[in-house]
Amino acid sequence: MSEINSKDVVALRQKTGLGMMDCKRALTESDGDFEKAVEWLRKKGIAKGEARAGRAAGQGLIDSYVHPGGKVGVLLEVSCETDFVARSEDFARLIHDIAMQIAATAPIAVKREDISPSVIEREMGIYREQLAGEKKPPEIIDRIAKGKLEKFFQESCLTEQEFVKDNKMTIKDLVLEMAGKLKENIQIRRFVRFTLGD
Amino acid sequence: MSEINSKDVVALRQKTGLGMMDCKRALTESDGDFEKAVEWLRKKGIAKGEARAGRAAGQGLIDSYVHPGGKVGVLLEVSCETDFVARSEDFARLIHDIAMQIAATAPIAVKREDISPSVIEREMGIYREQLAGEKKPPEIIDRIAKGKLEKFFQESCLTEQEFVKDNKMTIKDLVLEMAGKLKENIQIRRFVRFTLGD
Repeated sequence: MSEINSKDVVALRQKTGLGMMDCKRALTESDGDFEKAVEWLRKKGIAKGEARAGRAAGQGLIDSYVHPGGKVGVLLEVSCETDFVARSEDFARLIHDIAMQIAATAPIAVKREDISPSVIEREMGIYREQLAGEKKPPEIIDRIAKGKLEKFFQESCLTEQEFVKDNKMTIKDLVLEMAGKLKENIQIRRFVRFTLGD
Repeated sequence: MSEINSKDVVALRQKTGLGMMDCKRALTESDGDFEKAVEWLRKKGIAKGEARAGRAAGQGLIDSYVHPGGKVGVLLEVSCETDFVARSEDFARLIHDIAMQIAATAPIAVKREDISPSVIEREMGIYREQLAGEKKPPEIIDRIAKGKLEKFFQESCLTEQEFVKDNKMTIKDLVLEMAGKLKENIQIRRFVRFTLGD
């Protein structure tokens, strides 16, 4: 096991906001590689967040974001377990990042389960029509269409989208990581997005 | 016709933001009574606003308001005719006042035409049930129920509500007055209001 540089521990704490013991452990587990340690902590945080997903989340925050110029606006509700966390800076930053993400990317639902079957049917119909002219066997067309639908989910569902401020993680990762850090179940409850004249 | 006090003209301009000629005329028509002049200008403004109601309103602004504490939030779209008006201070103030009104009063629709027949039926059913024990003739019960429905509309429809910052006018008056002042058709397009955990 390699020697752990204490400067790296401090830098890791500053970057992730996590405790010294966690940061030390992350560097040890990553043989002193800083980037790997960040990755290790992220996965750990997400795992911790997942462990809390079943718990009641009756508190939370409503936040809004309107793009300069007032042509696009978002209203968002994110829940957590306690008022203490709801009033924390970390939670406020999380929800504001998500509100800005929604303004920028225009998702149509929080998660894929929220997309109505009629929308999925319409999408699949479009893909099949696009592929119909290509003289491929039906099972291949079906597989390609399903692949396109998967991509549609990843682009249209907020939790599956890449985080615009860090495309190495999804919004789901971002939320779970914060849930791990704040030790509470955090859920994106709902959002609306207005475009002027829509 | 009484002599018009030039100080009153200036005060009236400051209060209403309207032109000097309008303010002078208002004081003349009101025999120099300041409060009556304000009222006269308001009615005039509303009439001017009404005259513009049919015109296309493809520009506008999206605004939000979240109550301190983040438990109630509003997203609102108000349209006007030109980007010039959309970017004016008057228009921004109007839409922000309306957003705060919605946060405070929780209307269920912009106007009564937007309330679904099933909600109206449910309300009428409640009123009739409340009145059933009172041994009144059916036509009286019906008239009282209709009166209660009227009150329900006035409390639940944004445009019919009293403006919380000035209960001498409704939100509709407020919008029409601004439409008269800014010389454009102004329409409340839509809003959503979130309450935490709703």
